[in-house]
Amino acid sequence: MNRPPLHLPNAEFRARLKRLLACQKRLRLDAVLLVTETNLYYFTGLETSNGLLLSGPEDGPAFHTDFRYLTMARRQAPWLSSRPLWRPADEQSVLAGLGQDWRRIGYEGRMGAERFLRWQKALPHVEWVDVSSAVAELRSVKSRAEQQAMRNAVAANDQLFAALMQQTVPGMSEWDIRSLVRREADLLGQGEAFNTIACVGRNGAECHHRPDGTVLKRGQPLLVDLGLRLNHYCADMTRCVFFGKPTPLYRELHAVVHTANRKAVRAIRPGVACRDIDAVARGHIEKAGYGKYFGHGLGHGLGLEVHESPSFSSACGTVLKPGMVLTVEPGIYLPGKIGLRLEDVIVVTRTGCEVLTRTPHALTV
Amino acid sequence: MNRPPLHLPNAEFRARLKRLLACQKRLRLDAVLLVTETNLYYFTGLETSNGLLLSGPEDGPAFHTDFRYLTMARRQAPWLSSRPLWRPADEQSVLAGLGQDWRRIGYEGRMGAERFLRWQKALPHVEWVDVSSAVAELRSVKSRAEQQAMRNAVAANDQLFAALMQQTVPGMSEWDIRSLVRREADLLGQGEAFNTIACVGRNGAECHHRPDGTVLKRGQPLLVDLGLRLNHYCADMTRCVFFGKPTPLYRELHAVVHTANRKAVRAIRPGVACRDIDAVARGHIEKAGYGKYFGHGLGHGLGLEVHESPSFSSACGTVLKPGMVLTVEPGIYLPGKIGLRLEDVIVVTRTGCEVLTRTPHALTV
Repeated sequence: MNRPPLHLPNAEFRARLKRLLACQKRLRLDAVLLVTETNLYYFTGLETSNGLLLSGPEDGPAFHTDFRYLTMARRQAPWLSSRPLWRPADEQSVLAGLGQDWRRIGYEGRMGAERFLRWQKALPHVEWVDVSSAVAELRSVKSRAEQQAMRNAVAANDQLFAALMQQTVPGMSEWDIRSLVRREADLLGQGEAFNTIACVGRNGAECHHRPDGTVLKRGQPLLVDLGLRLNHYCADMTRCVFFGKPTPLYRELHAVVHTANRKAVRAIRPGVACRDIDAVARGHIEKAGYGKYFGHGLGHGLGLEVHESPSFSSACGTVLKPGMVLTVEPGIYLPGKIGLRLEDVIVVTRTGCEVLTRTPHALTV
Repeated sequence: MNRPPLHLPNAEFRARLKRLLACQKRLRLDAVLLVTETNLYYFTGLETSNGLLLSGPEDGPAFHTDFRYLTMARRQAPWLSSRPLWRPADEQSVLAGLGQDWRRIGYEGRMGAERFLRWQKALPHVEWVDVSSAVAELRSVKSRAEQQAMRNAVAANDQLFAALMQQTVPGMSEWDIRSLVRREADLLGQGEAFNTIACVGRNGAECHHRPDGTVLKRGQPLLVDLGLRLNHYCADMTRCVFFGKPTPLYRELHAVVHTANRKAVRAIRPGVACRDIDAVARGHIEKAGYGKYFGHGLGHGLGLEVHESPSFSSACGTVLKPGMVLTVEPGIYLPGKIGLRLEDVIVVTRTGCEVLTRTPHALTV
């Protein structure tokens, strides 16, 4: 394909700004200031490394950016008032000028500390409210158009995995396999959404293993965790395949993890708390005797970023709503021996969920 | 090649930690706390998405991280005391426990605001000193081993450009060209160090143009700004080539920019201020009548990151020292018409500079 990313229709971004304004009113904030790239893109459709989205008490939201991006912003998002912010240092005086009557302002906790301290200096009497989780909540429910974008990304990721399996043979190193994924991700999408994990043999037992020179041999399993980005949205999938005849231990773990995945998927529906879905998969793995070898949460939200809100973890009380998109990825890791994880992407529907990932949980290549 | 990145020898990281300690003493800081990934890598050789490097008043520096990275840290950097930090929330109490006698602490202004506010709460009586520029200064002078790593990265980038020119033909889009660069950067290094800029025809006049579907035709110039990453270090180069017979305007601009580049290179030597090098190139472009079409600085430091300290800009008074590595990239941009930039990487030597980039400033393919 080799195509630049497509944007969602303009109406989508205008609707998001409206929801931001409603959120601002609900939290009784005089203004909200957003600066991180992903949130700027989410609410405006603009991709800039330097911008400030200001939703004030009057007028509509305004986008402040430097000369490099101003023309683009005015052309791409004419519904938004875009204003020049010549140098980062000007921000402080712009805020001091606009915000004299503001008392409560929403900001993002992820923004840089030094920049935030300058805001505090500009507006010393303000109560600062971290709106990160409120914004994450807005982003967690995907619109129809977003769900379609994610369906397309996951379908392209299925193609990517198929292409990878056609080209992967014993004798290749983890690093070779990772490079293959990167090249295919460039062809089928706009590159990797995250650094591909490729683990041969016992390396699979390390959750955060970095691909190295370990060579795949016959009689070994391969774990690949891979996701491309297509039109801004991320895919994410893990598959484990055995090259040759699987050992009895491998067969057993594969069956346990597969069933944990399926049981969790069947339990997903609106109104259920995330932690209860985690408990379904965890319960199955515990019953099989591998509870202490499943050291991470069952899954995470997915969208413009690889890790979004909410998450299938024992600590997450968020109640599922239609339109939420998450991964389901139970795993078992026996240190020094073997690791196995089967990860799919699901979207919560009105009655249950739709599994977007179509690649089967095959035992062998 | 398709190889995982190599690390510099351990002695390199131990020497860096010593320089950090000397810097801490000079600034009279009871402790320095570093958290951003690049600085953690620079001082420890460890690649983690979650870590805290604590250089306190006693003992040696300690690395706090979670269970995912602890084993790796202890194995890879045995000279460093690595301690478990179970959850991000634990950090606050760890700091409160250790730092009761600390009065002045160095931190990084780029760290997240929310995390910094938690540190402030843990240690309310502390004077916080942003050490970003002090650390940037340490990083700006490259050791022998680093200079060699950068020489290798730039040489691989020269190969990348040659491979690109062999494969680029009229009929390809900017996006095709960009994808080619990505694939070659995977083969020759460990991927792109930044998003490749590829501009056909008048698109070259937009400094921050994103590659799109514009198709390269005969009788058009192509501007490519590309850099791979090899063994953690970044390369960076811009070349402009004309497909077919260059127009008189193109020839003229190419000559002006080429001479500006060469004049600047000849002026570089230890003891000269960065801004004076910028002035040499700018003066030449101004004399040719294009001064107002050279809207950016002459260059920037390069190393583990694509933009480092110092920079060849009219605002930078830093005095050049042997071992500093920077780009030299004069350009002329005529809006709606044409853009031309010629960018090389240099390392300051004891008597002048060495140009690491070997790709010629050719007018045509």
